[in-house]
Amino acid sequence: MTATKGIENHTLKIMSEVAEAVLPAQYAEDFACLAGPSFAREVFLRHPTAVTIACRRESRAVQLQRLFYTEFFRVYFTTDLIGVQLCGAIKNVIAIAAGTADALNFGHNARAALITRGLSEMTKLGLSMGAQARTFAGLAGMGDLVLTCTGDLSRNRSVGLKIGQGMTLQEITAGMKMVAEGVKTAQSAYELSRQTQVEMPIVDQVYEILYHGKDPREAVRDLMTRELKREA
Amino acid sequence: MTATKGIENHTLKIMSEVAEAVLPAQYAEDFACLAGPSFAREVFLRHPTAVTIACRRESRAVQLQRLFYTEFFRVYFTTDLIGVQLCGAIKNVIAIAAGTADALNFGHNARAALITRGLSEMTKLGLSMGAQARTFAGLAGMGDLVLTCTGDLSRNRSVGLKIGQGMTLQEITAGMKMVAEGVKTAQSAYELSRQTQVEMPIVDQVYEILYHGKDPREAVRDLMTRELKREA
Repeated sequence: MTATKGIENHTLKIMSEVAEAVLPAQYAEDFACLAGPSFAREVFLRHPTAVTIACRRESRAVQLQRLFYTEFFRVYFTTDLIGVQLCGAIKNVIAIAAGTADALNFGHNARAALITRGLSEMTKLGLSMGAQARTFAGLAGMGDLVLTCTGDLSRNRSVGLKIGQGMTLQEITAGMKMVAEGVKTAQSAYELSRQTQVEMPIVDQVYEILYHGKDPREAVRDLMTRELKREA
Repeated sequence: MTATKGIENHTLKIMSEVAEAVLPAQYAEDFACLAGPSFAREVFLRHPTAVTIACRRESRAVQLQRLFYTEFFRVYFTTDLIGVQLCGAIKNVIAIAAGTADALNFGHNARAALITRGLSEMTKLGLSMGAQARTFAGLAGMGDLVLTCTGDLSRNRSVGLKIGQGMTLQEITAGMKMVAEGVKTAQSAYELSRQTQVEMPIVDQVYEILYHGKDPREAVRDLMTRELKREA
């Protein structure tokens, strides 16, 4: 769960950038974002949960860390505000891919590969935008991605499951009160990938499936038969 | 799955170091290790799977990559032989922790936090031993860790489940034909952590639970109430 999950479709701005554009300048440094693997229901039940709080001003981040912390809700802090927000947004696109793979019964190996290579794409995009790699390996990145791709409660994963069952995006969104964030973020991430010239093959395939009706099995074949590479 | 998963208990050597000690010197550079999220059953069924192959000699790594690759078995390569082996070994300790948390019904948040903070410990240990951070964020690290901690097929996770149900290590191992690797690796990792002076709080708690009968609930409380930190 992330408080600020979006990337605006036309401006490609993340939430803190939107806030900077509309709020007085003195608030920008104090804009904070709490993120990490935290299904609300489990927090309510006081199950052990760990999250991270991001704020550019370190002293504010530490203050918020101490404010939110309890013995069942452990809070880390970071100053990588951009990274934490990108994680929260793009993980939803990967969750759609994971749901699709699950619906097609591709199994545990495929899901773990999607999560790992998905995080690799997110990290590269983040680095190109000034974020830190370790944020993507942390609770807001890997942690929330694992939760979203393996938990049963995720709205984005549900979209993927329906895609894998053969429904079109129009059929899926017609039945939803609120569109899953990953659907819109797939388009923003696709455009960011072009703007930054960072290769994001999984994002590309999700975009093609959602917006151009590409067959998910063909998408997987295209992912599996890309040029062989060094892992990085 | 990793071909070479162990850390010798007394020498604290990983498998390639054992090989170097017993094989003629000219073979050392060609020692390779295939790792990544790859339940054998799913590979057999030709479900999409991605792995990485590690060899110090890059030309050999590329050669092996091309040898093992098929359109349902995608192979990356790396020269970080130490990192890949450490991932394969220590992930089993984290899987015991994840199984224990699952048996205690701690939920998805706790499991995702264990996986993420567990990977953080593994990465720090690896860096202190000359491995690369990106290996831990890759298929042999994060990928296999996610598979082992969330898949139902893992022997190490089963040990954790039984611990969480209140069984002792002696009772568990008495019923196993082959001891789960994570049980022995917990001891090696505990010792490596002291030798390298890298803090590994989750490994410490698994060691205390397995070898000194610590109550898992107390272990969780100790993890959750550690000094508050920056995430890194």
